[in-house]
Amino acid sequence: MSKSYYIGIDIGGTKILTALADNNGKILNKVKTATQADKGQKFIISNILNSIGDVKKSSSVKKADIKKIGVAVPGPLDFENGLIIKNSNLAWSKVPLVDILESHTKKPVVLENDANAAALAEKYFGAGRDSDNIIYITISTGIGGGIIIDGQIFHGGKGNAGEIGHMTLIPDSDYQCGCGNYGCFEAVASGTAIARRGKKVVKQKRKSLIINYSKGNPELVDAQLVAEAAREGDQEALQIYSLTGRLLGIGIANVVNLFDPEIIVLGGGVMNAEKLFIKDLKESLRQRALDYNLKKLELKKSELGKNAGVVGAIAVSMGDDLYRLT
Amino acid sequence: MSKSYYIGIDIGGTKILTALADNNGKILNKVKTATQADKGQKFIISNILNSIGDVKKSSSVKKADIKKIGVAVPGPLDFENGLIIKNSNLAWSKVPLVDILESHTKKPVVLENDANAAALAEKYFGAGRDSDNIIYITISTGIGGGIIIDGQIFHGGKGNAGEIGHMTLIPDSDYQCGCGNYGCFEAVASGTAIARRGKKVVKQKRKSLIINYSKGNPELVDAQLVAEAAREGDQEALQIYSLTGRLLGIGIANVVNLFDPEIIVLGGGVMNAEKLFIKDLKESLRQRALDYNLKKLELKKSELGKNAGVVGAIAVSMGDDLYRLT
Repeated sequence: MSKSYYIGIDIGGTKILTALADNNGKILNKVKTATQADKGQKFIISNILNSIGDVKKSSSVKKADIKKIGVAVPGPLDFENGLIIKNSNLAWSKVPLVDILESHTKKPVVLENDANAAALAEKYFGAGRDSDNIIYITISTGIGGGIIIDGQIFHGGKGNAGEIGHMTLIPDSDYQCGCGNYGCFEAVASGTAIARRGKKVVKQKRKSLIINYSKGNPELVDAQLVAEAAREGDQEALQIYSLTGRLLGIGIANVVNLFDPEIIVLGGGVMNAEKLFIKDLKESLRQRALDYNLKKLELKKSELGKNAGVVGAIAVSMGDDLYRLT
Repeated sequence: MSKSYYIGIDIGGTKILTALADNNGKILNKVKTATQADKGQKFIISNILNSIGDVKKSSSVKKADIKKIGVAVPGPLDFENGLIIKNSNLAWSKVPLVDILESHTKKPVVLENDANAAALAEKYFGAGRDSDNIIYITISTGIGGGIIIDGQIFHGGKGNAGEIGHMTLIPDSDYQCGCGNYGCFEAVASGTAIARRGKKVVKQKRKSLIINYSKGNPELVDAQLVAEAAREGDQEALQIYSLTGRLLGIGIANVVNLFDPEIIVLGGGVMNAEKLFIKDLKESLRQRALDYNLKKLELKKSELGKNAGVVGAIAVSMGDDLYRLT
């Protein structure tokens, strides 16, 4: 009997990761392509198609044995019609990606929000595998979330559930979010918010290593630079991370009170600096979440890291083969 | 063939509502008893048992035809062991209510959080019947919520999901919640918060009808008194309701972004004054919820009102007979 294989594609603003996996979700081959978003939709799609060819080429897998292709992209998506509705990273709007890829590859293609896909990946192949009810939160330039209920992605009544980053956390904040509103979780507690607070230190010329490291240019300040200053004991930088931890704890407490999950998986680039804020995060989580919901709650770090998206794309394509794994 | 019947019991801090219904959920008889919470657990349980006897007595339903008893109580509950874990209204703790009622009635008894039960009632018999994905929010002295996913109560991984009232809405608020934290949704946007803002007007001796109506005694100010002043055009009172509407809109936007439901059903006593705040609520909801999630979202008023709890208790007990109704 021939084995089944799957292809997963993670389309990000800067890179496209494409992987080939067997029916146990084991990755056999992987290729990375620069997205070059500025070159437009046609160019990107041709890049995606090439990456599919490339990932197959160096393996011995026959085209006929590839069962399905899963694609992870930033939302929101129109699942019913396989459309990317809006995508600020790629400057796409209403792109019928499923139709395009299916007509070229002659394989069924399934689309998923990247944070949802990553959540599914952590559930089946990562830090969430011990529970069927987990929430994955990625803390990066933005904050994204994926909610797994009974082992499956929770899409809500209309397909766009789990927009954790767009929960209002500080109603009267002047931190504007990419979505247009103010005080969203991702506007006040993401890497971008850390950078924003660091830039302010520079603009206000407060005594801080952030000024030294950025040579006084606020444009050069990012979350990583602030982390470096904090690691050297810089008080301004330490306070920025401490505040971020407290805000992260509040946002996580909110989803804990609403979803009562068993495991929270934290991922994203900002987690590389977790030592600078995890204590504050846990303290405010303990303070804000209901005692009952805190019981048996585990806070874990993503095991898949940068591969969460592409492994998620594979997981999404696997369907029954995925559920067989538990 | 004999018909099946169900008994629903809604145990509140001031009254116990007990109803008998047929297998279509039609209420045949209903009795109301004062809880008299101060008389202790034994007294209340004997009241509950009497109410079960009373509701059957004046009907022609035979005891043998009663299939199940559903009980709605404020949470949190331990579903696995049929325990009321903590109940500030009744001063109960770890009461094995299911065992007690089953041993007395010889019928299977099922326990449910009252807001969850009310949500199920609105889904099958009220304002939520056109969708399988609804959220019920009761705005009263507190704020409670019940989440219906795919036609069923969402309990989360550990049983205590849907604690909408305990999502932190204003992290730096000095409004303390019954749960011990500050700035919870119910601490800042419930009837109690309205009363608190009204009391402040009295204490600060601002020019307002709230002072006239309360004769200058802040202890006499409640949400209804503030509503009466607002209806007479009192600016302080109008502003209190306007602020409450804005905060309600933000809290609802958060659950809309997280759950993407099709219908939000609003109930509870504060909704009697909806004209004073619904415009502000809708405006802040539109501003804070993601466009995609707002699409096709309906905001409806509870159809079951004060009966939502007892109808919910019946719905909870109906099981398969309930799902047959859709």
